[in-house]
Amino acid sequence: MGARVGRGGARAHRYAVVMAGGIGTRFWPHSRRRRPKQFLPVQGRFSLLEDTVRRLRGLVDRDKIFIVAAPEFRPLIRRHLPSLPVENLIVEPAARGTAACLGLAASFIEERDPEGVMAVFPADHVISPLSVFQRSVRTAFATAESERCLVTFGIRPSAPSTGFGYIEVGAVQKRSKPQVFWATRFVEKPNVATARRYLRTGKYLWNSGMFVWRVDVLREAIESYEAPLAGVLGALRGARGRAAAAARRDFAALRSVSVDVAIMEKSDRVAVVAGDFEWNDVGSWAAMEELWPKDEHGNASRGAVLQVDCRNTIASSDRRLVAMVGVDDLIVVDSPDAILICPKGKAEEVRRIVDALARGGKRKYL
Amino acid sequence: MGARVGRGGARAHRYAVVMAGGIGTRFWPHSRRRRPKQFLPVQGRFSLLEDTVRRLRGLVDRDKIFIVAAPEFRPLIRRHLPSLPVENLIVEPAARGTAACLGLAASFIEERDPEGVMAVFPADHVISPLSVFQRSVRTAFATAESERCLVTFGIRPSAPSTGFGYIEVGAVQKRSKPQVFWATRFVEKPNVATARRYLRTGKYLWNSGMFVWRVDVLREAIESYEAPLAGVLGALRGARGRAAAAARRDFAALRSVSVDVAIMEKSDRVAVVAGDFEWNDVGSWAAMEELWPKDEHGNASRGAVLQVDCRNTIASSDRRLVAMVGVDDLIVVDSPDAILICPKGKAEEVRRIVDALARGGKRKYL
Repeated sequence: MGARVGRGGARAHRYAVVMAGGIGTRFWPHSRRRRPKQFLPVQGRFSLLEDTVRRLRGLVDRDKIFIVAAPEFRPLIRRHLPSLPVENLIVEPAARGTAACLGLAASFIEERDPEGVMAVFPADHVISPLSVFQRSVRTAFATAESERCLVTFGIRPSAPSTGFGYIEVGAVQKRSKPQVFWATRFVEKPNVATARRYLRTGKYLWNSGMFVWRVDVLREAIESYEAPLAGVLGALRGARGRAAAAARRDFAALRSVSVDVAIMEKSDRVAVVAGDFEWNDVGSWAAMEELWPKDEHGNASRGAVLQVDCRNTIASSDRRLVAMVGVDDLIVVDSPDAILICPKGKAEEVRRIVDALARGGKRKYL
Repeated sequence: MGARVGRGGARAHRYAVVMAGGIGTRFWPHSRRRRPKQFLPVQGRFSLLEDTVRRLRGLVDRDKIFIVAAPEFRPLIRRHLPSLPVENLIVEPAARGTAACLGLAASFIEERDPEGVMAVFPADHVISPLSVFQRSVRTAFATAESERCLVTFGIRPSAPSTGFGYIEVGAVQKRSKPQVFWATRFVEKPNVATARRYLRTGKYLWNSGMFVWRVDVLREAIESYEAPLAGVLGALRGARGRAAAAARRDFAALRSVSVDVAIMEKSDRVAVVAGDFEWNDVGSWAAMEELWPKDEHGNASRGAVLQVDCRNTIASSDRRLVAMVGVDDLIVVDSPDAILICPKGKAEEVRRIVDALARGGKRKYL
């Protein structure tokens, strides 16, 4: 009973911030300027944003979940999360990277609750199983609360991926399940040889882009490592009218930088919770290989798809039949007004189609 | 003036038979059971059938053009050729190959005009330029009339194709333009090595499946080489009621054989007009490479297609955008309810999709 009260007490100050601002081009034709991937159902019937919020049930009170995004996504967010309190939608004055975005959210929460601890989740990840994820988040909350440190989630790499940053871990901070380490180093996306080496040492985890920290701890870190941002956040706090407008202009003039580069790489008080859950950042259509059902020849598909004599293809149909014969390693994605075809190894190049459409003035497809 | 009268006199007995009966599966998803490729516009706005008939203007009087097809295509034919006299539609009692089909058509014309000379054209070929084609047909008519022989059109091979039968030509029969030869041999589709040898000798032409003959000459050849067919055609002639029904049943029981195998290969009185026109039998989607506009990387396309960093692809869009990035040698064909993706080298295997759909009970896509 004591433990229950204790947890309930802690939960009173626990917040979640879901970043729903990204405008991805790699999920064209499904993602569009006005409907980025976090608003798409990638698995099952809920959008990635809805799934992200649903995963927080029991971890964070509903009124302590904030969504941060650009103003143009306000209507979509309200449609996907109708029960979200209006005041829990934080609008970014401008997209200036995750340092500014999360600094703003922390400042917002600190005004409401100086004891607040906030967990940060991108709105476009696929995570399972729920129980393992929630156990990791509870461990991260407890670590941020007791150690007053910055906490990040590291994912045990399953392959020498060059698509993620890595975190080198040092001493074990807590022999819990999941384990918690002190971070010794953040490294940017490596080349394949370096990634292979990381994998062999067993000391590197993928940087998942999910974090937990006390809002005052993050503020102090920003004051130490990213002073211009600290200044703008100070000016925004409680500002109204002309002062607020000026502060918003200053926000828009900040350098665009990730929280990893601005803060995490510089701090020597970063803990890493080793996430044992399945994690997929849904970086491109190639990621669907792990998310959609596969046949015995490695063909992943969703919807009305016929893969005859195909190997390791990925195909999605909304309404129409997608019929493929004799192709390997190809991605085919059907949408109501456009269809994408590209090799799996070139899933990142989908943005070239978006670029070509923009250059060609084909705005209706953007 | 004398020449003109002479030609007019010859034209009085000149007929054309367009074979519109084929049910192709290689043009799925555009061709369907109820709408085979001859009813599709492949180039420009007219269907292949309409184009075939339009090419005969000035060669054959409109009321002397016959269409032969299965009964289920009657409504489509009337829609595509609204000015065709009803009595010029010859309905096959059953599909028993081109020997039976053309024997029936010849019998039909001979009843009307014992002096008739008929030219035969499949409804699904693309041919240009018109003037060269018409000159060849006139030469063929003149040869069939003066020599009382079977005449076929041979196409000078542009590649060692294994998709066509070949005709070996011998002595020059007429030093006209186009040249006319006596055929020495018909050969079935060869392997690549044999096709290469044929190409080197310069004595082999592609068998185009287009013919000209006097109807009485064809009847006599059928009597000599395909007696059961001659018997059925004799029974059908003028038969009514029960006798006609019995004759139609006998027709359906005939062996299914091509006119090439049943007649042309056996006759020693076959002339070959060397067709100098561009000819494409539109055998599969791969043929579109020669029919649709190409970009500088060899990508052929029709409709709203975006080919970024692609080589030698073939793509067709009806309404929606087809966007491809980084693929080579691929065929993509969009249709309102289904899309096809297959490598160019496997264009013949489209029928495997049709087979799979039939097995899976997906009749709406057939």
